[in-house]
Amino acid sequence: MSLSLFEASVPAFERSLTAFLGVLDKAEAHAKARKFDAANYLAVRLIPDMWPLTRQIQAFCDHAKNAAFRLAGAEPPAVENRETTIAELRARIHATLEHLKTVDSAAVDAAADRDVVFPLGPAKMKMQGANYLLHFALPNFYFHLTTAYDILRAGGVEIGKRDFLGAVPGLTPA
Amino acid sequence: MSLSLFEASVPAFERSLTAFLGVLDKAEAHAKARKFDAANYLAVRLIPDMWPLTRQIQAFCDHAKNAAFRLAGAEPPAVENRETTIAELRARIHATLEHLKTVDSAAVDAAADRDVVFPLGPAKMKMQGANYLLHFALPNFYFHLTTAYDILRAGGVEIGKRDFLGAVPGLTPA
Repeated sequence: MSLSLFEASVPAFERSLTAFLGVLDKAEAHAKARKFDAANYLAVRLIPDMWPLTRQIQAFCDHAKNAAFRLAGAEPPAVENRETTIAELRARIHATLEHLKTVDSAAVDAAADRDVVFPLGPAKMKMQGANYLLHFALPNFYFHLTTAYDILRAGGVEIGKRDFLGAVPGLTPA
Repeated sequence: MSLSLFEASVPAFERSLTAFLGVLDKAEAHAKARKFDAANYLAVRLIPDMWPLTRQIQAFCDHAKNAAFRLAGAEPPAVENRETTIAELRARIHATLEHLKTVDSAAVDAAADRDVVFPLGPAKMKMQGANYLLHFALPNFYFHLTTAYDILRAGGVEIGKRDFLGAVPGLTPA
């Protein structure tokens, strides 16, 4: 009848982060086939006053990590934004996946009934845990994930919805 | 301790759809200020082999409606893709919000324990209800919502993350 808060958060982050490793593989393969440096993608923006690819990837990694730790009532480990290569961005995603593995699922589940406190710009805000996940963390995560995908897709990488979704669990012919 | 499937789906769709009405308002205001027809946005694509704005909006409306009805075990009402103006796209979003109001929340909640059957291209697929929501419906919905936002943002409309998120419930200073 119901869903645990852990189930609604960490596995979705993990599926999406793992899928994006495959998107980066396709970006590198495309660059190699066209004989340009895949790192040329890192500074690409959809418009000059939006964040570039690197910052979009850092942002979705942080939204996943921070949401999981805050839901669990723990301080998210600080990660600096220093990536300057595709290999380093791939390592950032792997590090995020490792951080997610350390999150206590029972502590996350308990967040449904308490407030999550988090910084928003210069302010400190709070939200009830389930609202924080559904109306802040998930839309922010998917916003930066999709925009990173869109930058690569608009930049010629041959990716489609399946690459974005990744390994959808339990999808079988009816 | 837990989340209902209805809580994890319909209110997130409603918040996002309502927010996108505001995004369309800003697109029209921008076009008016720059003295061009806002309908010029409808055919804009991030790259020629991606869907244009109109189709992205139709897609996120359908993902929201179809997910809610399928989770409830009901046949989603069919809606044709005929919009050719911003006003018609706004009406499509309103119609989607009206459809969501008719969904039985208890029936949606019951989907956590049963399979949801849905068409995927030419195939008929099934997934356990919670997996369907978390790993198919929500990422698909946010994918098309963000891409629609990105098309307008890259097209000069003055929008930001707050316009994308809309009215985040229960967000208060800590």
